[in-house]
Amino acid sequence: MNEIVAVQPVLGPDAFFLLMGAILVLAMHAGFAFLEAGTVRKKNQVNALVKILSDFSISTLAYFFVGYAVAYGVTFLAGAPELAAKSGIDLMKFFFLLTFAAAVPAIISGGIAERARFWPQLVASAVIVGLVYPFYEGIVWGERFHVQALIESALGAKFHDFAGSVVVHTMGGWIALGAVLMLGPRKGRYTRDGKVIAIPPSSIPFLALGSWILVVGWFGFNVMSAQGLDKISGLVAVNSLMAMVGGVLGALIAGRNDPGFVHNGALAGLVAVCAGSDVMHPVGAGVVGALAGVLFVVAFILTQNRWKIDDVLGVWPLHGLAGAWGGIACGIFGSPALGGMGGVSLLAQLLGTLGGVAIALTGSLLIYGALRKWVGIRLTEEEEFQGADLSIHKITANPEEDITR
Amino acid sequence: MNEIVAVQPVLGPDAFFLLMGAILVLAMHAGFAFLEAGTVRKKNQVNALVKILSDFSISTLAYFFVGYAVAYGVTFLAGAPELAAKSGIDLMKFFFLLTFAAAVPAIISGGIAERARFWPQLVASAVIVGLVYPFYEGIVWGERFHVQALIESALGAKFHDFAGSVVVHTMGGWIALGAVLMLGPRKGRYTRDGKVIAIPPSSIPFLALGSWILVVGWFGFNVMSAQGLDKISGLVAVNSLMAMVGGVLGALIAGRNDPGFVHNGALAGLVAVCAGSDVMHPVGAGVVGALAGVLFVVAFILTQNRWKIDDVLGVWPLHGLAGAWGGIACGIFGSPALGGMGGVSLLAQLLGTLGGVAIALTGSLLIYGALRKWVGIRLTEEEEFQGADLSIHKITANPEEDITR
Amino acid sequence: MNEIVAVQPVLGPDAFFLLMGAILVLAMHAGFAFLEAGTVRKKNQVNALVKILSDFSISTLAYFFVGYAVAYGVTFLAGAPELAAKSGIDLMKFFFLLTFAAAVPAIISGGIAERARFWPQLVASAVIVGLVYPFYEGIVWGERFHVQALIESALGAKFHDFAGSVVVHTMGGWIALGAVLMLGPRKGRYTRDGKVIAIPPSSIPFLALGSWILVVGWFGFNVMSAQGLDKISGLVAVNSLMAMVGGVLGALIAGRNDPGFVHNGALAGLVAVCAGSDVMHPVGAGVVGALAGVLFVVAFILTQNRWKIDDVLGVWPLHGLAGAWGGIACGIFGSPALGGMGGVSLLAQLLGTLGGVAIALTGSLLIYGALRKWVGIRLTEEEEFQGADLSIHKITANPEEDITR
Repeated sequence: MNEIVAVQPVLGPDAFFLLMGAILVLAMHAGFAFLEAGTVRKKNQVNALVKILSDFSISTLAYFFVGYAVAYGVTFLAGAPELAAKSGIDLMKFFFLLTFAAAVPAIISGGIAERARFWPQLVASAVIVGLVYPFYEGIVWGERFHVQALIESALGAKFHDFAGSVVVHTMGGWIALGAVLMLGPRKGRYTRDGKVIAIPPSSIPFLALGSWILVVGWFGFNVMSAQGLDKISGLVAVNSLMAMVGGVLGALIAGRNDPGFVHNGALAGLVAVCAGSDVMHPVGAGVVGALAGVLFVVAFILTQNRWKIDDVLGVWPLHGLAGAWGGIACGIFGSPALGGMGGVSLLAQLLGTLGGVAIALTGSLLIYGALRKWVGIRLTEEEEFQGADLSIHKITANPEEDITR
Repeated sequence: MNEIVAVQPVLGPDAFFLLMGAILVLAMHAGFAFLEAGTVRKKNQVNALVKILSDFSISTLAYFFVGYAVAYGVTFLAGAPELAAKSGIDLMKFFFLLTFAAAVPAIISGGIAERARFWPQLVASAVIVGLVYPFYEGIVWGERFHVQALIESALGAKFHDFAGSVVVHTMGGWIALGAVLMLGPRKGRYTRDGKVIAIPPSSIPFLALGSWILVVGWFGFNVMSAQGLDKISGLVAVNSLMAMVGGVLGALIAGRNDPGFVHNGALAGLVAVCAGSDVMHPVGAGVVGALAGVLFVVAFILTQNRWKIDDVLGVWPLHGLAGAWGGIACGIFGSPALGGMGGVSLLAQLLGTLGGVAIALTGSLLIYGALRKWVGIRLTEEEEFQGADLSIHKITANPEEDITR
Repeated sequence: MNEIVAVQPVLGPDAFFLLMGAILVLAMHAGFAFLEAGTVRKKNQVNALVKILSDFSISTLAYFFVGYAVAYGVTFLAGAPELAAKSGIDLMKFFFLLTFAAAVPAIISGGIAERARFWPQLVASAVIVGLVYPFYEGIVWGERFHVQALIESALGAKFHDFAGSVVVHTMGGWIALGAVLMLGPRKGRYTRDGKVIAIPPSSIPFLALGSWILVVGWFGFNVMSAQGLDKISGLVAVNSLMAMVGGVLGALIAGRNDPGFVHNGALAGLVAVCAGSDVMHPVGAGVVGALAGVLFVVAFILTQNRWKIDDVLGVWPLHGLAGAWGGIACGIFGSPALGGMGGVSLLAQLLGTLGGVAIALTGSLLIYGALRKWVGIRLTEEEEFQGADLSIHKITANPEEDITR
C-alpha cells in the first residue's frame, strides 16, 4: 500500500511531463514536412510530405525493435501487463526519445530532397535509427561502452549534451552531408562551366509554417529533456527562447531580411542551444543563438555557391554546423566565468562533438555507399525532371489545378 | 485544512491533465477543417473551413445544455461559485468530452462535402451532439440504462472502448454513411452509363496539414482518455504510436505511395487503436493499425468506385469501418494469448460495436430523413456547380487572385 | 532536506503548468502570422510572416532586459546558478508573460500591414514592450504604483483583468489605432471622391489557419493565467470555450456566413472573455462572446467603410473594442445577480479599462509621432505598390511560380 502511495504521485506527473514532450516533438515532424515542402519546387512537395511521414513510421519500428535496446539496453518484448506495470515510464521515455531519433531521417530528408529515390531512403532511415544514431546516443546519454566514464576520468567532466545539439542535430546534419555528396547536385543546379543556377523555393508560407511548428515543438524537445518533472528548469526554457530570438536577429541582419534565413535562423539558434541549455546564462544563450544564426547564413551561402554542395534545405549548416557549434559553445558559455553553471569541460565538448561527427560521417558513407552500389539512391534523369511527385506518387500537390489546366 | 491538503494535489494535476487533453482534441478540429479543405475542390474550401468551426460551435451549445446531461446526468445550471467549487473537474471533463462529441459532426462534414446545405447541417449537428451521440456515449461510458451491467453479467466483461473507436468514430462514420446516401453523389461524379469520374483534391499540402494536426492531437484523444493523472498509461501512448505508424505503412503499400492514402492511413490506425489502446501489446497495436490502413484503402476504393457511394473524404471507411474494426480488434488483441492485458470479451465487443452501428444508422436516417423532407439538405444544382464558397459564403478561397484575374 | 521535499512537488508542477501556457501562447504568434498573411494581399505575405517573427524576437530582448523589471521589479542579471536556484519559477513566469507582452506588437502588425516600414516598426515594438505595455501591466498585475490599492479603497474592488482583455488586447488594439491613423490608409483604399475600394484578402485558408492556431493557444493564454496549478480552474476553460463559440455564432449571423467574420468572431469572443473568465457563469460568458462577435462585425464595417480608417485586419475592433467590452463585461456578468462569482465592481472595470485606453493612445501617439517625424514610418509609394515582400525582403511568397511565369 505504502509503495503505491509513494510511487503513483511520482509516476503520473513524470509520465505526463514526458508525454507532453513527446507530443511536442512529434509535432516537429510536421514542421520538418512543411519546411521541406515550402523550400523545394512544387513538383516535389508531395514527396516531401510523404517522405517525412513514412520515414517517421519506419523509424518507429526500427527504434522500437532495435534502436532503443542499442542505446539503453531496454526491450519491450514482455507481455502488455508487465510493460504497463514495470515500464509505464519506460514506454513514455521510449515515445519521447523516438521522436528525437526519428528527427535524424527528417533532417537528412531536407538535404537530399528533389532527387533521391523513395524506398532506398526508407531503408537508410531504418538502419540509421536502428543502429547508427542509437550507438552514439547510447554512448552519450545511455552511458554505454564506458566512454563517458573515460572522458570524465581524463578531463574531469563528461561530454555534456543536454538536449541533443550533437546527439541529434550534428548527427543528422553530418549524415546528411555524406548522403548529399553521394547523391550529387540536382540537375541544372550547377552548369558545366561552373555557374550556380538559383532554384527558388515554392512557398515561403509553407516554409514559415514548418519553421513555426518546429520552434513551438522545440520547447518540448529542450525542456522535457529533463525527463523528470522534479528536474524541470525555467533556465532551459528561457535559454531556448533567448537562443531562438538570437538566431532570428542574427540571421535577419546577416541574411538581409530574407525570409528563408530569418525562419531558419530561429532553428539555428535552437539547434545550438540544446547542448548547453541547462548550464548557460540566458544572455550567453542569446549570444550562442545569434552566432548560430550568422553561422547558418554564411555557411549556407558558402555550401551552395562556393563549394557547390547541393544541400537543398541547408541541413548541414543548420543541424551539422550549428549543432557542432552548440556542442562546443556549451563548454565555453557553460563556464562560471561567463555566468554559466560550470561543471563542463571545453575539451570534453570538443572530443564529444568530433566523435559525433566521425560516427555520423562513417555511418553515412557506409550506408549510402552500400545503397548506391547495390540498389541506387537517385531518381533517373527523367523522373527527376518530371518531379518526385508525379514519378513516385503519381499525383501533384494541387491535382485539381493541374488537371483543369 | 487536512481536506484541502488532500484534495488540492489531486484536483490541480487532474484538471491540468484533462485540460491538455481538451486542448489537443480541440486542435484536432483544425485538422478536420484542413483535411476537408485539402480534399475538396477549391470552390468548396471556404465552406469546409466555416462548416467545421460553426459545427463545433453549435455542438458546444448542444452538448452543454443537453448532451452532457443525457450522457452523464450532470448539468451546469448552478451559479458560477458552485460550479467552480464542486465541479472544477466536471467542467474540465465537460470540455474534454465536448471535443470528442463535436468530432462526430466534423467526421460527417467530410462525407457530405461539396453539396450539402449549410444551415440544415448545423441543425443536424445540434441534434446529433445533443441526443444521438450522448445516448450511446451514456450507455458505454456513462454506464447509463444498465446496458453495460447487462453485458457484463451475460458475457463476463463490459463492452470496452477506451478512447472511442466505436463511441466516436464508428458513430460518426455510420451517421455520415446515412447522410451521404440521402444526399446522393456530387453532380458529375458518376455518369448515367455507370462511369466513375475522378474528382481530384485541391491541395495535398492542406490535406497533409490536416492529417498531421489530427495525428498530434490524437495523443491527447487517447492518452487523456484515462481522465485522471494517476491512470495515465505509457502503454496507451505507445500503442497509439504503433497503430499510427502501422496505418501509415499499411496504406503506403496498399495505396502505392499515394499521399492521400498515406496521410489517411495514419488516421485509420489511430481510429482503430482507440478502443483497445489500454489493453493491447504494442506489437498487436501495430498490427491492428496496419490492417486498418489496408482496410481503409480497399474500402475507400470499393465505396467510391464499385458501390458508387460518394463519400468525399472516405469517412465511412476511415471512421465507420476502421472504428468498427477497432472495437472488434480490442476483443482479439486484448486477450492475453496475444500479449494483451485480458479482461475483454470478443462477444461483448461485437455486441457493443453492432449496437453503435445500429444507433448511428437509425439516428442518421431519422434526422437526415426528416431534414430532407421538411427543409431540404442539398444545394441546388446551380449552387453546387458554382461551389459552396460563392453560393453560401459569397467569397472564394483566394479572393484576391479571383478578382484580379 | 525537508525543504526540498516540500518545495519540489510544488515547483515542478507549477513550472510545468506555466511552461505549457508559455508554449501555447508562443504558438499563438504563428497564428498572428498566418492570420495576417492570409488577410493581406499576396505581395505582402512574406512581410507579414517575417514581421511577426522579428517583432517577437525584439520583444523578447526588450522585455527581458527592461520590461519585466518595469512590470514586476524582477531582473535576471545574476549568474545562472542563482537564476536556476531561486527563480526557476520566475524564469518560467517571464517566459509565459513575455508571450503576452509580445502579442501587443503582433496585434499592431495586423493593423499597419501592407505599407509600414520594417525597421522603424521593430523600434516601436521594442519601446512598447519595454516601457508602455509593462507600465500598465505593472499597474494592473504587478500592483505597482499603488493604483490598484487606491481603486480598491475607493470602489471596494480592484480592477479585475484575469487574462488580459484590457492589459493585452485593449492595449494592443488602441496602440494600433494610433499607428494606423498616423500611417494613413493604403494607396487606393479610398478614392479622392470618398469611394471605398475593397482590397480582397489573399488566402482564406491561411486566415483560417491563423485563427485556429490562435484559438487553440488561447486556452493556454486564459487557463494558465492562474499562474499556479493549485489555482487552475475548469470555469476559466469552459468560459473561454463558451465565449469562443458565442463569438463564432454571433459573427456568423451578423456577418452573413462570411469566413473572415466567422474566424475572427471566435477571436473576438476570446478577447472579450479574458478579463472575467474566472468570475462569470458559462452562459454569461457565451453571451459576452456573442456580443463581442457582433460588435466586431459592426465596428469592422463602420471603421473601414464609414470612418475610412484602414485598419487592415480590423485589430482595433477585434482587440481594442472587444477587449474594452471584455473589461466592462467582467463588471456586469461577474456579478452574482447574473450567476457570477462576485467581487468585481463595474466602476472599477470602467476606470481600469479607460485607463488602459488612455495609456495606449498616449504611448502610441508619442512613439509613432516621434518615429514619423524623425525616421519615417511609411514605405514610399513605389515600395508600397511593388509590395513589402519585394521591396523589403527581395522575394515573393511563391518565388518559383513568379520566376517561371
